Amino acid sequence: MANRIEVLARQLTLAGPGESQGAGQEVLVGLCPRKLEAYLTHDNADLRARIFEFLKDPLYTPNDYLSLMEFRELTLQRLKRFLDQRFFSIRDYLSDPRRFQAALESLSFCDYSLAIKCGVHMTLCGGTICKLGTKKHHDAYLPGIDSLDLPGCFGMTELGHGSNVMGIETTAHYDAASGEFIINTPSNEASKIWIGGSGQHGKVCTVFAQLTVGGRWEGPHVFVVRLRDDAGRIMPGVRIKDMGPKMGLNGVDNGQIWFDNVRVSRDALLDAFASVDASGAYSSPIRSVAQRFGTMVGGLTTGRMLIAQGAVDAMKIGLTIALRYSAARPQFGDKLILDYLTHQRRLLPGLASTFALHLAMKRLKDLVAAGRPSDAKTIHIFSSGIKAAATWTRVEVLQHCREACGGMGFLSSNRIGNMLNDTNVDVTFEGDNTVLMQSVARSLLEDTAAVRAAAAAAAAPKRFDLAASGGAPASDPATLLALLRAREERLIAGAAAAAAGAAGGKKEAALDDQQDRIVELGWAYTERMCLQNMLAEAARASAADEATGRALRTLAALYGASRAERAAAPLLASGAICGAGAEALRGAVNAACRALGGGGARAPALVLCEAFGIPDHLLRAPIAFNWRDIGRE
Amino acid sequence: MANRIEVLARQLTLAGPGESQGAGQEVLVGLCPRKLEAYLTHDNADLRARIFEFLKDPLYTPNDYLSLMEFRELTLQRLKRFLDQRFFSIRDYLSDPRRFQAALESLSFCDYSLAIKCGVHMTLCGGTICKLGTKKHHDAYLPGIDSLDLPGCFGMTELGHGSNVMGIETTAHYDAASGEFIINTPSNEASKIWIGGSGQHGKVCTVFAQLTVGGRWEGPHVFVVRLRDDAGRIMPGVRIKDMGPKMGLNGVDNGQIWFDNVRVSRDALLDAFASVDASGAYSSPIRSVAQRFGTMVGGLTTGRMLIAQGAVDAMKIGLTIALRYSAARPQFGDKLILDYLTHQRRLLPGLASTFALHLAMKRLKDLVAAGRPSDAKTIHIFSSGIKAAATWTRVEVLQHCREACGGMGFLSSNRIGNMLNDTNVDVTFEGDNTVLMQSVARSLLEDTAAVRAAAAAAAAPKRFDLAASGGAPASDPATLLALLRAREERLIAGAAAAAAGAAGGKKEAALDDQQDRIVELGWAYTERMCLQNMLAEAARASAADEATGRALRTLAALYGASRAERAAAPLLASGAICGAGAEALRGAVNAACRALGGGGARAPALVLCEAFGIPDHLLRAPIAFNWRDIGRE
Repeated sequence: MANRIEVLARQLTLAGPGESQGAGQEVLVGLCPRKLEAYLTHDNADLRARIFEFLKDPLYTPNDYLSLMEFRELTLQRLKRFLDQRFFSIRDYLSDPRRFQAALESLSFCDYSLAIKCGVHMTLCGGTICKLGTKKHHDAYLPGIDSLDLPGCFGMTELGHGSNVMGIETTAHYDAASGEFIINTPSNEASKIWIGGSGQHGKVCTVFAQLTVGGRWEGPHVFVVRLRDDAGRIMPGVRIKDMGPKMGLNGVDNGQIWFDNVRVSRDALLDAFASVDASGAYSSPIRSVAQRFGTMVGGLTTGRMLIAQGAVDAMKIGLTIALRYSAARPQFGDKLILDYLTHQRRLLPGLASTFALHLAMKRLKDLVAAGRPSDAKTIHIFSSGIKAAATWTRVEVLQHCREACGGMGFLSSNRIGNMLNDTNVDVTFEGDNTVLMQSVARSLLEDTAAVRAAAAAAAAPKRFDLAASGGAPASDPATLLALLRAREERLIAGAAAAAAGAAGGKKEAALDDQQDRIVELGWAYTERMCLQNMLAEAARASAADEATGRALRTLAALYGASRAERAAAPLLASGAICGAGAEALRGAVNAACRALGGGGARAPALVLCEAFGIPDHLLRAPIAFNWRDIGRE
Repeated sequence: MANRIEVLARQLTLAGPGESQGAGQEVLVGLCPRKLEAYLTHDNADLRARIFEFLKDPLYTPNDYLSLMEFRELTLQRLKRFLDQRFFSIRDYLSDPRRFQAALESLSFCDYSLAIKCGVHMTLCGGTICKLGTKKHHDAYLPGIDSLDLPGCFGMTELGHGSNVMGIETTAHYDAASGEFIINTPSNEASKIWIGGSGQHGKVCTVFAQLTVGGRWEGPHVFVVRLRDDAGRIMPGVRIKDMGPKMGLNGVDNGQIWFDNVRVSRDALLDAFASVDASGAYSSPIRSVAQRFGTMVGGLTTGRMLIAQGAVDAMKIGLTIALRYSAARPQFGDKLILDYLTHQRRLLPGLASTFALHLAMKRLKDLVAAGRPSDAKTIHIFSSGIKAAATWTRVEVLQHCREACGGMGFLSSNRIGNMLNDTNVDVTFEGDNTVLMQSVARSLLEDTAAVRAAAAAAAAPKRFDLAASGGAPASDPATLLALLRAREERLIAGAAAAAAGAAGGKKEAALDDQQDRIVELGWAYTERMCLQNMLAEAARASAADEATGRALRTLAALYGASRAERAAAPLLASGAICGAGAEALRGAVNAACRALGGGGARAPALVLCEAFGIPDHLLRAPIAFNWRDIGRE
C-alpha cells in the first residue's frame, strides 16, 4: 500500500493541512437548537407537530416510479386523507389565518404537489369564497371544501393575460329576464389557463370575469361556477383541456377552460363587495372599478405568503441535506467537502439568507394578523418583495445544494433535485418575480417624502471604510445595514431623477430604460428590510435567550456581508466603498463561512439546521444519514 | 368598450411609447442566416441533416405521460432504431472523430436521455475499447457495440470516489495459475456507482480497477467485464442495484455495481498501453503510474466535449423558443415582452454566450482533430474550461428562458423546463465544474513564464477609460478583450503571490484559502479565450462573407461587455475601470440588447436564432409557433 499512499500524496489535490476550526464554535456556546427552533416556529407548534406525525402514513412515502396519471391520483388521495383529519377548516381562513397558513405550510415539507393542490383548493378557491362571498356562499360551499366533496379551482389567469389580471376578457352579462349571469369566453386568448385542479378533479371554480349589467361595464367580478357535476361529468357549455405534463408539480392537474354561454344563478356572484338585485340594479360600496378590482385580488396575499414560505422551507430541506452530506463526505483524501472554501461559499450564505427570509416572513405574518388598514401598503411591498426574493434565492440555493452533492443531488431519493423541478414554478406564479420587484420599486417611488430624503442622502454619499481595524466593519451588522441603506437610497434617487428628467409622456419610457435598476431597487429594498428585521429579531430573541440572539446576529452578519458583496460593483462605482472595502467584504464572508462550516460533524451550520426542526421521516434523503451505506444489502 | 380602454390606459403598466428600433437592424444588412448556419455547423452538415430528418419518425415524438420504466424502455428502442440506421460506426471514434461527434450531437436536439444513453454506450464504453484496447478487443466487441447486441457501460466512478478517479478502490489481481484477473469490490464505498446503462440493459462494462500483478501494484487499469449474459441474466459474482428515479434523464438506467471475485480472462485487460503476459509479467511503455493513469482517462475528453456541446445546443433550443415567444407575446397592452429591457437582458447576453461557446467548441474540435501532441495541455485546459463554462451558463440561460416564458416555460410540451431537468446533471458529471475550473487555474499557474508575465502586467495595472467618447470603448471588442486579459493577469498574479508567500507545506493551505479566486481565474481565462477566439472567427468569417463576420463581431461585443459587466466589482476594485466605466459597460449591454431585441418579429435576435438551424419538428414547442392557438380545438 506504500505505493498507493505515495500516489495519493502526489495527486493534484487541493487538500491542505486542516484549518483551525475552533474559532467558529463560539456561536454554539450555550446554543440550544430547540430554543432556536421554538423562536423560528413562532405559532401553532402543536398543529405542525401533529401534521408531521400524520405524514408518517405510508400513503405519503414518495413514489417516483409512477406515470403522470398515477401520480395525480395519488396526490388526490393524499389530499383527501389529509383533509379528512380536520387539522384545520376553511373557516380558519378568516377566523384563524395563522392556523390556516401553518397547516398548509406543513404540507410542503412532504410534497410540493400536495401542498399546491391543497393550496389551490383551500386558499385560492375556498379563501376567495370566504372573503368575497357572503353567508349564502359560505353555507353552500364551505362544507364541500372542507370535505373535498367539492374540489375547488381558481379561474383568474387567461391565456392572453398572465400578469395583467385587470385585462382579462372573460365576460359575465346579467340577463335580467332569467335572473342569471351568462359567462362567456369571447376568444381563445380569453380561455382560463393554468387552472390548478381543473384538468381532472375540479368541480367548482371561482371565475374572474368582466361584469356587464344593464349594458354598463363594472369591471372584474368573481362568480362561483360549477365545472363538473357531482359525478364528475363536465357541465354543459364548459370545455376543459387537461394541460398535461410539466417540468415538475405533476401531482397537480392544470387545465385550460372555455365557457360558452354558461348560465349561473344570480347567487353565483360573490357579493360581499358588489351585488346585483333581482331587477338588475348593480350596487357596490366601492365606486371605482380599480379599487373594486384591488379588493377582488387582495386575497392573493395569502397565496403569495404560502409560496414565499414554501420557498424558504424548500431551502431549509435542501440545505440540511446538503450540509449533512458535506460534513460527512471526504474527497481527495480525508478532507471533508464542507471544509473546502468554495463549498462553504456555495452553501453558507444561502443558510444565512434562509434565516433572513424566514424571519421576514414571520414579520409579514405578524403584520397580516394585526390587520391594521394603515399597514396595507407595507404588506403589499413586503409580500411582493419577500415572495420574489425568497423564490429567486430558492432557485439559486437549491441549485447550489444539488451541485454540492454531486450526482447524489440529482437522485430523486435525495429530494433536492425533485424539489428543484417542482418548485421552479414559484418564480412566475402568484405574481411574476420581475413584475413584483418592479411593483415594490414603484411603490417606493410613489412616496415623495421618502424619495426626497433618498435624493438628499444620495447627494452627499456616505463613504464606508470597511477595511478599518483589519476589516472589522465588514462583519458589523449595523455598518452593513447602513451600507445596504445607502445603496437603496442611491437607486431611489437615480430612478426618481431619471423619471423627473423626462417630460410628461416620456416618463414611462425613461423608467423603462431604467428597468434593470428598478428591479435592482426591489432587491435593495427587500435585502435592507430583511437585514433590519433580522437584527430586530436578534435583539428580541436575546431578551429571552442570549445564545439564540447571538446565533441570529451571527447569521445576520453573514447575510449582510454576502448581500453587500454581491452588490459590490454599484457600491464601488458610487464610491460608497473602495477596493480595500470590497476585499474586506470578501474576507468577512470567507471568515463567516470558515466559522460556520468548519468542524465537520460538529460544524455550527449543522446545529443551525437542527433548528429547522425537520423530522427524519420528512428529511428522508439517504445522503443526509449515512452515505457510506448507500446500496448496501 | 370605451370604459375598458380607459381602464387599460390607467393600469399600472410599464409600457412606454415604442422605442426607436431601427438602430439594431443594421446587423441584419446582407445577413443570410443560411450562410451563418453553414459557418457555425462547420462539418458533417449532410449527416446532421439526415439524422434530423430521421428523427421525424414518430418513435421520437416526446411522451411525458410514461412511467419511469416505460420511458427507459422507449429510450432503449429509440437507441436501437437509431443505431440500426448506421449513420456512423464506433470505428469512427478513431478514424473520423468529427463524424462520430456530429452524430452524437444531433441526438441531443431530440432528447437528452437518448443522447446520453447513446453517448455512454458509444463514447465511454465503445470509445474506451477503441482507444485502450487492441485488435482482439476491437474484433470481439465493436460489432456488438454498433448493433447494440452488447449494450455497454463505463465503470469508473465509485461511491467513495467521485472526482478522485485515481483513488478508486476496486481491485484486479492477476492469478497466474488460472491466467485470469480477479475483480473485487473491497468495500461498499468501492462499489461502482452512477454507471449509466447498467441498471437494466448493460451487458458489458469497461471497469476501472487498481491492478496488482505478482504482488506489485501498477495503478488503475481498464478491464472489459460482462455484467449480463446474452439473455440479460446478471453474471455470477456481479451484483447490480438499479439507482431508480432521478430529477431528469430518466431514460437512462443508472446502476450501482459490486464485484465479488469475478474472474475474467487475461484478454479482458485493455492492453494498448499495458499488458500482462501468460507468465504474469507486467509491461508498459509508460513507466509512471500517474502518466499511465493520465493515458487511461485521456479518452474522457471526447465525452467532455459532447457534454459541453450538448449544453450549448440546449441553450440554442431554449433561446430560440423563448425569443420566438417573446417576440409574439404582448403583456400590459400591445407592448411585446421582448421589448422590455429586463426581458432583453435575461435573454440576449445568453444568446451572445451561446455563440461564443459554440465557436470555442469549434476551435477545440479543430485542435483535437489536428492531434498534435504539443497541443495536449491546451486541449486539457480548453476542454475543462469550456465544459464548465458551457454547462454553468446553460443552467442560467435555460432558467432565464423558462422564467421569460412564464408558466409556458414550465410546461413539458414547450421543452425548456424538461431540458432544465434533464441537463442539470451536466454541471457535475464528466468532471465536476468547480474541480474543472480549479484544474484550469492550476494549469495556468504551472506555467512559470506566463505567471511572471502576468505578475509584471499586474504590477503596472492598465486603466481603461471606457466612458471616453460617450462610452464607445465599452462596445469595442478589442478593448473588452484587453480588459478581460487584465482581469485574468491580476488573478494569476494574486494566486501566485499567495502561494509564494506561504512556506512549503503551507502553500496548499494558502491556495485553498484563495479557492474562490482560483475558480474565478478558471472563468476569467475561459471568457478571455472565448472572446479572443470569437474575434478571430469573426475575422475569418468576414473573409468569405462580410455580413456573417459582422454578426459575429456584434455578438462578440455583447459577449465581452456582458462578461466584463459581471466582473465589474473586481475591475473596479483593482482600478482597471472607474465608476463611469462600469456605467459605460451597463450602457453598452443595454444598447446591444435594445439593438438585437427590438423590432418584434423582425428582431435581429430571431434571425440569429435561425442560424442555429433547428428544424420545426425538433423545436416542437407550441409557444415557438402560434401561442394564440394553444388549446384551440
